[in-house]
Amino acid sequence: MQTFTENASPEQGPPRLGQLQNLLRIKGVAAAIVPRTDIHQGEYVASCDERLAWLTGFTGSAGFCVATRDKAAVFADGRYRTQVRAQVDTDFFEPVDWPETGLADWLAKNLPDGGDVSYDGWLHTADEIEKLRKRVEGKGIEFVCHGNLIDQIWMEKPDPPNGPVRIQPDNLAGESHKSKRERLAGELREAGHAAAAITLTDSIAWLLNIRGADIPRNPVVHAFAILHDNARVTLFVDDKKLNKEVIAHLGEDVDILPYSDFTSFPVKLDGALRIDKSTAPERLSWLVGNMESRRFEWGDDPCILGKARKNRVEISATREAHLRDGAAVCEFLAWFDNQPPGTITEIDVVKSLENCRRATNMLLDISFDTIAGSGPNGAMPHYRVTETSNRMLQDGELLVLDSGGQYEDGTTDITRTLPVGNVNEEERIAFTRVLQGMIAVSRLRWPRGLTGRDLDAIARYPLWLADHDYNHGTGHGVGVALCVHEGPQRLSRKSEIPLNPGMIISNEPGFYKEGRYGIRTENLVVVAEAIPLEGATGTDKLCFKTLNFVPIDRRLIAREMLSDGERKWLDDYHADCLKKIEPRLSESARKWLNWATSPI
Amino acid sequence: MQTFTENASPEQGPPRLGQLQNLLRIKGVAAAIVPRTDIHQGEYVASCDERLAWLTGFTGSAGFCVATRDKAAVFADGRYRTQVRAQVDTDFFEPVDWPETGLADWLAKNLPDGGDVSYDGWLHTADEIEKLRKRVEGKGIEFVCHGNLIDQIWMEKPDPPNGPVRIQPDNLAGESHKSKRERLAGELREAGHAAAAITLTDSIAWLLNIRGADIPRNPVVHAFAILHDNARVTLFVDDKKLNKEVIAHLGEDVDILPYSDFTSFPVKLDGALRIDKSTAPERLSWLVGNMESRRFEWGDDPCILGKARKNRVEISATREAHLRDGAAVCEFLAWFDNQPPGTITEIDVVKSLENCRRATNMLLDISFDTIAGSGPNGAMPHYRVTETSNRMLQDGELLVLDSGGQYEDGTTDITRTLPVGNVNEEERIAFTRVLQGMIAVSRLRWPRGLTGRDLDAIARYPLWLADHDYNHGTGHGVGVALCVHEGPQRLSRKSEIPLNPGMIISNEPGFYKEGRYGIRTENLVVVAEAIPLEGATGTDKLCFKTLNFVPIDRRLIAREMLSDGERKWLDDYHADCLKKIEPRLSESARKWLNWATSPI
Repeated sequence: MQTFTENASPEQGPPRLGQLQNLLRIKGVAAAIVPRTDIHQGEYVASCDERLAWLTGFTGSAGFCVATRDKAAVFADGRYRTQVRAQVDTDFFEPVDWPETGLADWLAKNLPDGGDVSYDGWLHTADEIEKLRKRVEGKGIEFVCHGNLIDQIWMEKPDPPNGPVRIQPDNLAGESHKSKRERLAGELREAGHAAAAITLTDSIAWLLNIRGADIPRNPVVHAFAILHDNARVTLFVDDKKLNKEVIAHLGEDVDILPYSDFTSFPVKLDGALRIDKSTAPERLSWLVGNMESRRFEWGDDPCILGKARKNRVEISATREAHLRDGAAVCEFLAWFDNQPPGTITEIDVVKSLENCRRATNMLLDISFDTIAGSGPNGAMPHYRVTETSNRMLQDGELLVLDSGGQYEDGTTDITRTLPVGNVNEEERIAFTRVLQGMIAVSRLRWPRGLTGRDLDAIARYPLWLADHDYNHGTGHGVGVALCVHEGPQRLSRKSEIPLNPGMIISNEPGFYKEGRYGIRTENLVVVAEAIPLEGATGTDKLCFKTLNFVPIDRRLIAREMLSDGERKWLDDYHADCLKKIEPRLSESARKWLNWATSPI
Repeated sequence: MQTFTENASPEQGPPRLGQLQNLLRIKGVAAAIVPRTDIHQGEYVASCDERLAWLTGFTGSAGFCVATRDKAAVFADGRYRTQVRAQVDTDFFEPVDWPETGLADWLAKNLPDGGDVSYDGWLHTADEIEKLRKRVEGKGIEFVCHGNLIDQIWMEKPDPPNGPVRIQPDNLAGESHKSKRERLAGELREAGHAAAAITLTDSIAWLLNIRGADIPRNPVVHAFAILHDNARVTLFVDDKKLNKEVIAHLGEDVDILPYSDFTSFPVKLDGALRIDKSTAPERLSWLVGNMESRRFEWGDDPCILGKARKNRVEISATREAHLRDGAAVCEFLAWFDNQPPGTITEIDVVKSLENCRRATNMLLDISFDTIAGSGPNGAMPHYRVTETSNRMLQDGELLVLDSGGQYEDGTTDITRTLPVGNVNEEERIAFTRVLQGMIAVSRLRWPRGLTGRDLDAIARYPLWLADHDYNHGTGHGVGVALCVHEGPQRLSRKSEIPLNPGMIISNEPGFYKEGRYGIRTENLVVVAEAIPLEGATGTDKLCFKTLNFVPIDRRLIAREMLSDGERKWLDDYHADCLKKIEPRLSESARKWLNWATSPI
């Protein structure tokens, strides 16, 4: 169950920073970088890898700290601007708006005489370090890999995770790990690579049809894999996590070595190792490149596109997960609509929703900490309620409720914005604009070959007309019974990856008025080939098919703002919600659903 | 006045190709490239530079021919697919869909044993040749610069153009050429460049506030310029084109040398010459780089952004030109609506429209050959009517009418699609979708920093919903009293140039049903800073301001498909048309305008 304690100790920040700065002096370095990411470049990390939170108190899922001998800064993106200022002691840690201000610029300004900047090459990709080095060229700043300075001062570090590994059955994965290994090994042979290093935990889980419990909210196992061009795999994993069934499932083509052995890379290769420059630790290439008779070449993680483009079985499995999850959310909504303003808090909402999901008896975990932001808290896109921030829901407020579940057959993610009592016209108009963007994406049909960048503006257009916008992407990739944030597919100005059939992304435009309220409406969609319409011309089109079926609150919609096409989409969607979800509901929730899905 | 003769002799293609192929054998080369472009990389070229049309018969404004010793191909893009097949003798010239098939691929297929491919380094940019070389790597194909092979066989070549140069007065240009030279010289000094080569004729015209008459439809002069870091200019131009006033206007800071001297580059520089890799002839860098104590560096044409971002005076001048031109178009439309189906031809339309523009007594030239495509001819986006293709306008047809004028104060471009008699529902629905895309762009407000690529989808969305699309960009840059096609600003998936205040682009979505009909609606718009709306959040927004005021035919609009916002835009636009244009019209046209602009 989600907890509501502050899981960091910001008051410990200043003394810990003092220790780090002492170490800088001892080592003779000018500064050190402390990233949020772990060795697997995961967005969620195990508690033993929470170095950034330990040092600064900031618990966001992205960002980093830089400490010089007399200063420190915490860099956070648009989602965490407010949170970082609330969590860290700003007398000691300067909050920096990132990427508007880059690390290199900050370093150049704060180290006018240059100096060595210490980093841990296992926690950064080669891409990242290369870009950083380019940006400080000629400024007298050198990035030096010294191992991990935090690990030298963090005395009471939690143990590494020890979650059991389970099998993802073929009837849910849609392809055996043997078939995946053989297919990808063929691609390695074609590329002339003897093997590929796989360091992303969700890639390994996908490749071997296994799931783990090492990271909160993400069913992955801390492991590394080497996929050889003969389809064998060397898997580095703590074997205490593997039971007999899992070992049998992995079979004789998978050699198991201790997890910690990976960093000495005891694998003999008769050719080049493929390393993904944008996801693998920089240190790996350095290590392999420096070993006699070993060499590497840059290339994509071989799992990356196969994982992103779900097969038919995965899509139908996650469809079922979304219906189950949608029914649970509807049970919650039916309850929520009976709670008068001023009677329940954000924590009550989170607990009640999680209980509805648990009542399915199929929930393995929630897929991320539920975001339940009422009133001004809703204006923080990634708000997580704590005992301190918790507040009562009051008449006239909006509640942004963004949540999801992990099931054996799928990973869900959905956001609904809910009215508490009677909501003002301003909020209803803004809600309708956000909805128009979300509907525009839902209705999209586009010629194959376009990327997230080419389409992102479609969702923003109705907001732009009112000089509104949102400071996050329109959608992120989502896994099936895997991570709720998955790369590389995205609906974002920053994404140059063509959207192709089978990719699942979120569709979640929003609007945030700082100190006042937030709005976001989100469904997951899967890219599909569109059935050509009558009179179709030109190349074939792709489209999105919606996975979530939960009513969108009609009380917040300014009906007259919608076009006929938008109204039809909404009514059709609500009719689908009724048809698909009603049979799964309790009596009282059925009544609510019939009301909630009546035509606009 | 626009002519309607076939200005090429396709029947001459095969014997001329034979001569070229003989020359290939004599020179011992395997193939030759014959581009459409001239030394200035202009889209429109003088008749002495019409090498592609002379050889093949194809008169499109983009494309190229490749001849091997026994084959030849003409490459044409989406705008010219039909035209190229109609114009060339396809027994001798294979029409190739470009860029779907690239030159390198075609060469690799047709020269399996490799060989030398001859090109003229004065007619291609360094960028172009570098890319071509990369694409044929390892295929045994070499690109060799041999001078121009066509010029060796084209005996009766027309004389080079000899148009007089005139002054663009400061009260229309908004900035003296001295001020422009000094401003840009400062930028050269900052970049450490001793001088910059300017080879685009419109850049020179803009920089020196001069206009010419060397190229049809484009008021430019064949010239080259070197801008020095002390703000002096070396201008290579045939001095027969300059009268006393122009020489005085250029003043003592501009040194004049013969046009033909440029290719020996007799300029002494005390430092590096900046050459634009994407617009200057490849041969220039080769020449400068090989001369003792000379060197060059790649960098943008220094005029490119200043020319693209019009100043206040230019914007107000071109506004006036658009009102004058809009009144002329309305006079034409009032006449056109009185012509019964079956009584006038496409040529009648072109002549009548040109006469209306001439009646302003201000027309210097039309800004491109008018596109008047009725019925199936309308499906060719760049159709130019000839005596052969000319046809009578029949009941039920659409007429795509795309035209513009060159005036001393501005360059106009406008497309309207007109009904002939009673038009079917299918065409009206398609027309309305195109209009929705055009309105969506007109209403856009977006955060500063976005490029044409980020916004192009906005115009296509309503078409995509019906599985329609158009095979051209949404908009091109437009000059002020300069070229109607101007770079680098564009509204296109291919454009990575941020749209910034003062840039003028066209907004012209379309739909083309081959063999049936075409639809296009186009206004020019200028990028401006948007006045923040009440409740605006986030960064400042940019918007488009419309320049053309000519009614959009309401008989072709399926009213019920439009949203309230779209209807309001249309009614407001028509009210503006009435207010701004009515005072400039004849009695009969006023009556028509009042009818044509009444609310939808």
